[in-house]
Amino acid sequence: MGERAYNFGAGPAMMPDPVIERIAREWQDFDGGGYSALELGHRSEPFADILARAKADLRELLAIPDSHHVLFLHGGATPHFAMVPLNLAREGQSADYIHTGYWSDKAMAEAAPLANVRIAASAAASEFDRVPDAANWQLDPQAAYVHICANETIGGVEFADYPDTGSVPLVADMSSNILSRPLDVSRFGLIYAGAQKNIGPAGLAIVIVRDDLLHRARAAVPSMMSYARHVEWDSMYNTPAAFMIWVAGLVFEHVKKAGGVAAMQRENAAKSTLIYNVLDGSKLYTNRIQKGSRSRMNIPFFLREPRLETRFLDGARRRGLINLKGHRAVGGVRASLYNAMPLDGARALADYMTEFERRYG
Amino acid sequence: MGERAYNFGAGPAMMPDPVIERIAREWQDFDGGGYSALELGHRSEPFADILARAKADLRELLAIPDSHHVLFLHGGATPHFAMVPLNLAREGQSADYIHTGYWSDKAMAEAAPLANVRIAASAAASEFDRVPDAANWQLDPQAAYVHICANETIGGVEFADYPDTGSVPLVADMSSNILSRPLDVSRFGLIYAGAQKNIGPAGLAIVIVRDDLLHRARAAVPSMMSYARHVEWDSMYNTPAAFMIWVAGLVFEHVKKAGGVAAMQRENAAKSTLIYNVLDGSKLYTNRIQKGSRSRMNIPFFLREPRLETRFLDGARRRGLINLKGHRAVGGVRASLYNAMPLDGARALADYMTEFERRYG
Repeated sequence: MGERAYNFGAGPAMMPDPVIERIAREWQDFDGGGYSALELGHRSEPFADILARAKADLRELLAIPDSHHVLFLHGGATPHFAMVPLNLAREGQSADYIHTGYWSDKAMAEAAPLANVRIAASAAASEFDRVPDAANWQLDPQAAYVHICANETIGGVEFADYPDTGSVPLVADMSSNILSRPLDVSRFGLIYAGAQKNIGPAGLAIVIVRDDLLHRARAAVPSMMSYARHVEWDSMYNTPAAFMIWVAGLVFEHVKKAGGVAAMQRENAAKSTLIYNVLDGSKLYTNRIQKGSRSRMNIPFFLREPRLETRFLDGARRRGLINLKGHRAVGGVRASLYNAMPLDGARALADYMTEFERRYG
Repeated sequence: MGERAYNFGAGPAMMPDPVIERIAREWQDFDGGGYSALELGHRSEPFADILARAKADLRELLAIPDSHHVLFLHGGATPHFAMVPLNLAREGQSADYIHTGYWSDKAMAEAAPLANVRIAASAAASEFDRVPDAANWQLDPQAAYVHICANETIGGVEFADYPDTGSVPLVADMSSNILSRPLDVSRFGLIYAGAQKNIGPAGLAIVIVRDDLLHRARAAVPSMMSYARHVEWDSMYNTPAAFMIWVAGLVFEHVKKAGGVAAMQRENAAKSTLIYNVLDGSKLYTNRIQKGSRSRMNIPFFLREPRLETRFLDGARRRGLINLKGHRAVGGVRASLYNAMPLDGARALADYMTEFERRYG
């Protein structure tokens, strides 16, 4: 076996070693049942337990109140760009969006034919270098909801804290920072998150939805796009991704053992600080995000010359620091530091950056 | 490791041993890259190749003509119950459905708010003991499409061959019999199939769609429900289930090596014949499906007394014949014999059935 690399990919991302090892142990004989973990049936005896435990552990990790349901759905976060307006906005009702970059833009574009999308605040004028100050948001008190992207993976912009939107439900795409720090779920109407970053493999989404929002859908929402339908069927309206849900549950167990989301918060602060410290002291690397809006999860940066970027990425790969290439929409370099990235991985990257600058800067 | 069981579950189902073993080998170090197969990034160099190869192998296996696109989508077959009318039926246009049991019923119920659903033929009068004779279907030549469920997993009813619907596109849910026999794809407008039966793990769907059907969608179809959008993005509109697509590709390779779908057809005929022969000669077991409509994939049967069913299932489990319990909607026993079930598994079940009848019949 080759040495385990530090995988800085933005998702599907690095997973915790103990989870990968646990799956390996049960791969060919799940729970002594004579079948592979991948063949786990959703009507089997073990699976009912797996689903219940995964929900309970997520509730415990995020202190999710009884007012909110937990769902495990197919397909990542993107379906929710449409599901949120379909389920939460009445015909003609407006919906407020906070425009912080690429992903909030995608969410708006998808909602536009389905609801009266209003941009309540935008950082476009400063080229998305910050989260717009909540004091200046132009919220509509009659809006169906306020939508935010809690962390923009491409721009590298993250909400340091979450606004109070009063009686208007706050909806957040937390695909890239869920479980990375403690959260007051009671302040949210709905949270959705693709699992392939802080949780697990691509294909799964986590939804946390407040009960009173389930019955605002307009007629004829397809069942697979109805939160109410999924709650009614406890995430089993159609065959769930049983293996993926088992894996997500293993990650929850792992995070609990590692000290919960408070421990993740400390680790993530330490990891991202290592990288930002190098950037702040550098004449070679640039990251133009305002300090209060810097993402702890995804740190995009550029080198003074594109020619050096290729050299930087090649050298990184040779050291087992992989998938550092920036998103195709912006180029450059991007270091994703999700929960499963160990502190040693961030340190290895910071050291390499310093050394590279000394040599080529 | 416990002995490998024969898994008769209806899906997530048994997978081919060589595929399970291959995944085990690459689990902790995929392609020597220092990461797990589960961490495979959809923008990584290996993945572009994996997706292209999976598509090419599926095309080769089913001789898919150039007129048709191949998609790998999230979420199994159920989303397509709504996607088919949303994409193929113009406002107010009728859509013909052939009613053969539980799953065609679900497809109709989901389509009903979205299109003018017409039942062109139904086996309800004979309690779904057959596929209605195509000679008696009342097709509307103006219909947007004709929808069939190629194999009803709960009833155990399968189309022995597929009808000619002339210029009206034929749409088939082939979740449970795709790749089980050769297929003339040119006769279909659209085929969709959840992967968790004949192909791979739960969470993935395969779609084969004729190019000229892509632009009939009414306005404001959510992107995740738009076939045109998925074709435009080559199954990468959002983060695809990269690991699952790799697994599906391994299954395609395996089927090719095993002789392709013609070999699967021979195996599946042999396996199902073993079970039907026991049923036909039995006074203990009953299956009431007409011979010409019997499913080769899912064989539901009942024992004379429910008390004996429990004993039958317990005894089967002790022999490593697992997941034989019938669907909760109908009870009884069900043997699913997808491609990955070896002939020896079907023989072990047939032998056990015979022995059980000798003892308790």
